[in-house]
Amino acid sequence: MTVRVGIIGASGFTGAELLRLLAVHPDLELVVATGESQAGTVVADLYPSLAAAYPDLVFAPLTNDLADAHELDLVFCALPHGTSQGIVPGLLDGQRTVVDLAADFRLKDASLYPTWYGAKHAVPELLPEAVYGLPELFRNELVGARLIATPGCYVTTATLALAPLLAAGLVEPTGIVVDAASGVSGAGRPPKPTSAFCTVDEDFTAYGVLDHRHTPEIEQNLTHVAGAVAQVLFTPHLAPMNRGILATCYARPTRSVTTESLRVTLRDAYAAEPFVMVRDTPPSTKATLGSQQVHVTAYADERTGWVVAIAALDNLTKGASGGAIQAANVALGLDETAGLPLVGLYP
Amino acid sequence: MTVRVGIIGASGFTGAELLRLLAVHPDLELVVATGESQAGTVVADLYPSLAAAYPDLVFAPLTNDLADAHELDLVFCALPHGTSQGIVPGLLDGQRTVVDLAADFRLKDASLYPTWYGAKHAVPELLPEAVYGLPELFRNELVGARLIATPGCYVTTATLALAPLLAAGLVEPTGIVVDAASGVSGAGRPPKPTSAFCTVDEDFTAYGVLDHRHTPEIEQNLTHVAGAVAQVLFTPHLAPMNRGILATCYARPTRSVTTESLRVTLRDAYAAEPFVMVRDTPPSTKATLGSQQVHVTAYADERTGWVVAIAALDNLTKGASGGAIQAANVALGLDETAGLPLVGLYP
Amino acid sequence: MTVRVGIIGASGFTGAELLRLLAVHPDLELVVATGESQAGTVVADLYPSLAAAYPDLVFAPLTNDLADAHELDLVFCALPHGTSQGIVPGLLDGQRTVVDLAADFRLKDASLYPTWYGAKHAVPELLPEAVYGLPELFRNELVGARLIATPGCYVTTATLALAPLLAAGLVEPTGIVVDAASGVSGAGRPPKPTSAFCTVDEDFTAYGVLDHRHTPEIEQNLTHVAGAVAQVLFTPHLAPMNRGILATCYARPTRSVTTESLRVTLRDAYAAEPFVMVRDTPPSTKATLGSQQVHVTAYADERTGWVVAIAALDNLTKGASGGAIQAANVALGLDETAGLPLVGLYP
Amino acid sequence: MTVRVGIIGASGFTGAELLRLLAVHPDLELVVATGESQAGTVVADLYPSLAAAYPDLVFAPLTNDLADAHELDLVFCALPHGTSQGIVPGLLDGQRTVVDLAADFRLKDASLYPTWYGAKHAVPELLPEAVYGLPELFRNELVGARLIATPGCYVTTATLALAPLLAAGLVEPTGIVVDAASGVSGAGRPPKPTSAFCTVDEDFTAYGVLDHRHTPEIEQNLTHVAGAVAQVLFTPHLAPMNRGILATCYARPTRSVTTESLRVTLRDAYAAEPFVMVRDTPPSTKATLGSQQVHVTAYADERTGWVVAIAALDNLTKGASGGAIQAANVALGLDETAGLPLVGLYP
Repeated sequence: MTVRVGIIGASGFTGAELLRLLAVHPDLELVVATGESQAGTVVADLYPSLAAAYPDLVFAPLTNDLADAHELDLVFCALPHGTSQGIVPGLLDGQRTVVDLAADFRLKDASLYPTWYGAKHAVPELLPEAVYGLPELFRNELVGARLIATPGCYVTTATLALAPLLAAGLVEPTGIVVDAASGVSGAGRPPKPTSAFCTVDEDFTAYGVLDHRHTPEIEQNLTHVAGAVAQVLFTPHLAPMNRGILATCYARPTRSVTTESLRVTLRDAYAAEPFVMVRDTPPSTKATLGSQQVHVTAYADERTGWVVAIAALDNLTKGASGGAIQAANVALGLDETAGLPLVGLYP
Repeated sequence: MTVRVGIIGASGFTGAELLRLLAVHPDLELVVATGESQAGTVVADLYPSLAAAYPDLVFAPLTNDLADAHELDLVFCALPHGTSQGIVPGLLDGQRTVVDLAADFRLKDASLYPTWYGAKHAVPELLPEAVYGLPELFRNELVGARLIATPGCYVTTATLALAPLLAAGLVEPTGIVVDAASGVSGAGRPPKPTSAFCTVDEDFTAYGVLDHRHTPEIEQNLTHVAGAVAQVLFTPHLAPMNRGILATCYARPTRSVTTESLRVTLRDAYAAEPFVMVRDTPPSTKATLGSQQVHVTAYADERTGWVVAIAALDNLTKGASGGAIQAANVALGLDETAGLPLVGLYP
Repeated sequence: MTVRVGIIGASGFTGAELLRLLAVHPDLELVVATGESQAGTVVADLYPSLAAAYPDLVFAPLTNDLADAHELDLVFCALPHGTSQGIVPGLLDGQRTVVDLAADFRLKDASLYPTWYGAKHAVPELLPEAVYGLPELFRNELVGARLIATPGCYVTTATLALAPLLAAGLVEPTGIVVDAASGVSGAGRPPKPTSAFCTVDEDFTAYGVLDHRHTPEIEQNLTHVAGAVAQVLFTPHLAPMNRGILATCYARPTRSVTTESLRVTLRDAYAAEPFVMVRDTPPSTKATLGSQQVHVTAYADERTGWVVAIAALDNLTKGASGGAIQAANVALGLDETAGLPLVGLYP
Repeated sequence: MTVRVGIIGASGFTGAELLRLLAVHPDLELVVATGESQAGTVVADLYPSLAAAYPDLVFAPLTNDLADAHELDLVFCALPHGTSQGIVPGLLDGQRTVVDLAADFRLKDASLYPTWYGAKHAVPELLPEAVYGLPELFRNELVGARLIATPGCYVTTATLALAPLLAAGLVEPTGIVVDAASGVSGAGRPPKPTSAFCTVDEDFTAYGVLDHRHTPEIEQNLTHVAGAVAQVLFTPHLAPMNRGILATCYARPTRSVTTESLRVTLRDAYAAEPFVMVRDTPPSTKATLGSQQVHVTAYADERTGWVVAIAALDNLTKGASGGAIQAANVALGLDETAGLPLVGLYP
């Protein structure tokens, strides 16, 4: 089975990561890649790293009939937040799978969009249908899905650190603190003062304090697994590196737990997962570089009565484009691991 | 007034930073610098950056009569933790000021040493006399002190973020989480697998989870300012940069607070401090690079009921050697800011 | 066809890179991996990035009958320079292919070893048989080879930049300058002061000036293609990054050349090469990160009468372990590109 | 004596570095700092590192009467290349010293501007008066100068590596290759794709091959010291670090030289220089970080008949703003070393 694939918004970092991964995917065949600001540019000129796989590919303009004209079975939509909701409805038809990498279809509660994203949702009627693209939580729902919302990078990290502990009722769903750090690629390709080399190199700083948009999405996931309203304070930081997210999460235990009992819970939850590995040492982002792996662990501190859960992943692979492909694999009935890198680049 | 200064253990990073700062200090004159493993090495060969200031200085061996032989008025002891306590007693006499940069005289409660440092203290009778070298908390006590314990780098950062809020009774002294990241120079000069370039570059990871040795020291300080037993869970992380510490601290408010009221409290507390600056934007380590400055801020999150206090500093300057000199300046009755860099290197 | 593969010296960076690449190789099956100083260590504990592919693999001790006991068809020897020559002879038999990643079998002239490597060669009688593992120069000779010497990382870079120009007689074989920079992984895994994070980060420096060991190997290759004695001054530099080598090479034209004519020569030479790409913009190491690609270009400067040829590659992939696998693929009659990454990681 | 100082174009990196250095200069008092695109911005908001020294300074707009209105004795002009020549003439009067950090007054031959900078010079009649601000070459000419052209950062590096060897007639003035690498701050503050973190981090690349604008300036200096027309091929590279330039220069000896004889020549030439140090080991940029120091060395390669001269410095300090202040110190009859950092930041 060959699936005809298009990428809308392929010139950004998540688009380029999709191209990297699709280059070795056995079942997905890239047919077209659009690039709003880069239409007409040879892909290999913008991303020489992709030249050997796509020597002649040119960023196409986005047209209304793109998906039909190219007979696309699968569309990845890698546009900025807020833009997808104007385009996705036109892509959906009974045969086609649409995987959105933006935030536009992640939140189930339409009323959260004005608060966290500054505008009313344009097509709230599509939100119930959209399946949240995290197979570790919604594998069954993803099978056959026609609209998939790929989780935020921080959200996948924090969710996979905490979900089994909440599902098992081992920690309180409120009062949670998620303190995380990300590499700079999370800020995207367009040059900005905040992601200039001389701003970021040799710097560590917090940003989005109290109001980062991944907050309600983490809460939605944790509420789902806890079966009770979860509340999270989320503080992202920027670390001087290209890729990687580490989330260090603090929660209160509901009963007596030990470091070992927490890890047993994690191991049981993730025993059958192809891409989540429970570690006995602190996860490091570098161990996941370029791979689809998530490394998680947990600690119980008897002295202060805190549970600490930590997860690391590559924000562009499992945290974005690899996550999108994994969800598409499930939706289309392919091998869930097809085309996804099992091992990372080290050093 | 010229003060004759010696450094014991000058070949490590805090020793080199002392040499950097003493090169422009108007009142302190370096007379001798020892280097255990580097005795006989020309300082400029190990640290070419210091060559212009110390063209002929050679690391001396540590001898029993070093301080007397060189008629030292002031000794900085930059030895590994656990080593100072064997050497400091021999340095003390009525005329001389000894500033220890190790942990050996930081904790007031001698019973904490076996728990956190793995061994009984050798000279617990000196602990009451040792003054904790943080002028922002103990300026009066430092005047005329003959034994000063320079705070740990993480400890200075977390303490200065939280102290005014605890002193004002605005946050609870227990249930505090300090989540911090440090540059690699905190690991010291000797090569180790964990601080090799290829281990650290492009990596972000936690370490010392639950049991980092700076924990009881943070608690000692916060207990002091709160007037009640403080309890802290401290999680350090390693960021791929040379210098800098950022501490993001979470505490529960005792009453209704706002971001603005927290910052007013910080501004009032630090109004007269030469080296602490309250900011309205998230502090970044890079803004303090190579300087004695500490940047702090705070936020109140009504939604989740957390207070977030953040501080940044240079771990080798204010966080170690600059802090030691500042304390020595106070102890000796010099201008507190003498020889200390007001501005940092950027970018 | 499944080839049974062993790695001797797998705990270093080139060993780990072999493991990364073998994890997805369709024909090569890893059977055993030794690690001198790490025997008994779980591979995934030393390299968590490899955990998903090798969950249970343990570094084995090196024993005399290793290759026979494991019925190895192919052995990669990733030991330090000087060590291989004591071990390779015992591995060779009529059926087995041995690929050495050290320098021990690279130089054809045994008299060069005392000069550049400080010791006489132990088995000079094997040097004639060893095939130099650069398919771009010695593809035919590699078919069926039983002993292959993988080129040095700098050597592959400089050779591929200059070889077609020398082969076409466009530049003089003497008076050549190769000025190159490498990432830190070239220094290997064991921690050293020169590869500590705080030494290297934010630093750029030259090393091995006049006497780097890759010099005679570059000269051997260029002499081979030029059909005349080549002479090269080679200056390596250390750049603050994990991976990557860029070589900027200066040579004198033998006749009138233009930038375009030089590139035509390069394009003709590399038209059929799967892993060498001629670019019209300056190559960058990052465009080759984690891939088997080499990017090359050339310029003619009419003003000063110099030809500048530039090449970039990943020192651990094409420059070491990927190069070794490519050569093994050719030797064994497999698809030359099997298991080798076509595209790199970006950013 | 207090000198009233203004900076025009203070919001860029060289402007910020001037502010850093002026904060501790004993004789120069900053009165006004303009920032074209940042007029009205608080300096400390753009550069928090400067907050303690300039708590209330606001970037001023550039007005025609700025220098007169503020009674400036000394003006540093830190504008983009091509802009200074429109502004400097209006700043000059008999009493005032103007130090330009752009390229506008560096080249003595006005006919070079169209070739290398793309436009005719607007005030070629000022070129003869402009003194080239490199005290190591033009100290006497600088005394009392009213218009000073600060050298380019690469130019200072390459010139100080080679000048004594050419002045002594030890190397040929033609056929010289200068291969250099710079940190990213050389690209300036405004965000660009080429200086974005994710472009530069973990990358090493060449740029400006054959046509970098510092080429004629290096040639002008080397011609001056050689007393014969010098010709240089210059290849700059970008290294993933904030600051620092290392130039590795290749030249042909005119007669028999040794590494030691070359270094003796360098030592003799620089014996009285406060900021140039001759080293016996390869210079590293990090050893000069944040300081005014230049580290140089040289090697003679008997084997290939090349001389290699290497220099390292901080591109923003000695290579730009520190160099400008040093030249101003000389021009104004101040202590040449006033306000200039003798030692660097390490690590």
